[in-house]
Amino acid sequence: MLYVIGLGLSDERDITVKGLDAVKSCERIYLEAYTSILMVDKEKLEAFYGKPVTVADREMVESESDTILANAQNVNVAFLVVGDPFGATTHTDLVIRAKELDIPVETIHNASIMNAIGACGLQLYNFGQTISMVWFTDTWRPDSWYPRVKENRDIGLHTLCLLDIKVKEQSMENMARGRLIYEPPRFMTVNTCLEQMLEVEEKRGENAYGPETLAIGCVRLGTATQLFVSGTMEQLVEEDFGEPLHSLVLIGRRMHVMEAEMVRGFCPEKYRAKFDEIYKRDYES
Amino acid sequence: MLYVIGLGLSDERDITVKGLDAVKSCERIYLEAYTSILMVDKEKLEAFYGKPVTVADREMVESESDTILANAQNVNVAFLVVGDPFGATTHTDLVIRAKELDIPVETIHNASIMNAIGACGLQLYNFGQTISMVWFTDTWRPDSWYPRVKENRDIGLHTLCLLDIKVKEQSMENMARGRLIYEPPRFMTVNTCLEQMLEVEEKRGENAYGPETLAIGCVRLGTATQLFVSGTMEQLVEEDFGEPLHSLVLIGRRMHVMEAEMVRGFCPEKYRAKFDEIYKRDYES
Repeated sequence: MLYVIGLGLSDERDITVKGLDAVKSCERIYLEAYTSILMVDKEKLEAFYGKPVTVADREMVESESDTILANAQNVNVAFLVVGDPFGATTHTDLVIRAKELDIPVETIHNASIMNAIGACGLQLYNFGQTISMVWFTDTWRPDSWYPRVKENRDIGLHTLCLLDIKVKEQSMENMARGRLIYEPPRFMTVNTCLEQMLEVEEKRGENAYGPETLAIGCVRLGTATQLFVSGTMEQLVEEDFGEPLHSLVLIGRRMHVMEAEMVRGFCPEKYRAKFDEIYKRDYES
Repeated sequence: MLYVIGLGLSDERDITVKGLDAVKSCERIYLEAYTSILMVDKEKLEAFYGKPVTVADREMVESESDTILANAQNVNVAFLVVGDPFGATTHTDLVIRAKELDIPVETIHNASIMNAIGACGLQLYNFGQTISMVWFTDTWRPDSWYPRVKENRDIGLHTLCLLDIKVKEQSMENMARGRLIYEPPRFMTVNTCLEQMLEVEEKRGENAYGPETLAIGCVRLGTATQLFVSGTMEQLVEEDFGEPLHSLVLIGRRMHVMEAEMVRGFCPEKYRAKFDEIYKRDYES
């Protein structure tokens, strides 16, 4: 049996009782660690499970799936995913390969950012499509997400923006010299995301949003230091949100008065007057 | 402390380890049982927790919140919610009231239909706004959800439809006679939802969708008998999906080829030729 098990958002104790029982029945345990991260390290998980855990990077999952699935017709194997297995990223290829090998697959769900984001005060059913933001480089500044944000905004819906993560990157020099030395992991901040979004709006000028659009920085969601800060995009770009992981929500015009009350509660005093002005001017009540 | 704890989708073992520890620390435990249901009854939860559980109906949560919160400044109280606390329904009023009473609140997240629906083969980030479908009566056939579906469909997004649940209903006769006798709980089927949707499309004729629109019946999500059946709306209306809970997804035109492959896997042989014809005609590849 292949168990694909969601770990939830924060630490080792966010696994479900069902998920933990499954892990304990497994001969091998893999942790997918390239699309998101847990707030605890592998050693903590191993101590909690009483079993060794193998970190599976993208290369392993994508090109060595048969190693992960070896003998899973006869023994239990766990593939652990931060959040929910069907969250922002799916592992369809692994599941399809398991089925080809006649390995039964069981999924154990958990919270992911796609539903826990409801804690920011906006109703989940008022969100439109979700976008992903990658780091711009000098030569690559992709904006294929822009029309999607515009579609959401045109019909008044909220937009969840998931921010890039880089793990196991090599520097150009190390790559050129063939040295398997990796850079420390990097996590995009709300600030970088906002800067890139404002740059693209300025360039395209289709008025999908602007410096005065209301937004919420959603930080370390589901952890003990979870933080929401609301304000305009140009206000939030100056804010210090601290440690990862960060996400951003652009608020849609069709914000219900009860949503507005909750979101206003996350607006620092210094931004409050502007928040109220923009809310009155641009948002429906 | 007030703990607001998500129970997940299926049975008593879907609670997280963190959630279970919190429950065990509580002096009183309430189970919200009017917006969704777990697949196990209160007695099973009580046996699992080793503590009594009080079922909280809508009236109790909405008008007796101070009973639930009594002395929660000094002792721990658990408020259990099927799915995630910020899922399809929120309990904002209870949380706001707790804060007024200086009671600390901690939320423990879990899977809900809003993220577990990713198991149907469609990517979560391609979903638009979510709608809720209530039972039509002879005199009340609300269609305020229709423009929302149309907005999603116009830009090619998928639509999750959450179906009505009726618990603790009184018959007209029992109500008239003041007898506190309640009807058995009722759960809307995929079939009823499809019938109502097709009726409204016929009446309004704005072409938000039609009998040949592709859809997925999503049944008992997250449980051992979970079932997905894809086909056209008019095919699925004839299908028998069995026990509750049911939900429906209307598939958006902008279906990725990998999504289509997964969804086609849920299409019964008898519907397959039609599925392929409609996919080729109406959906992007």
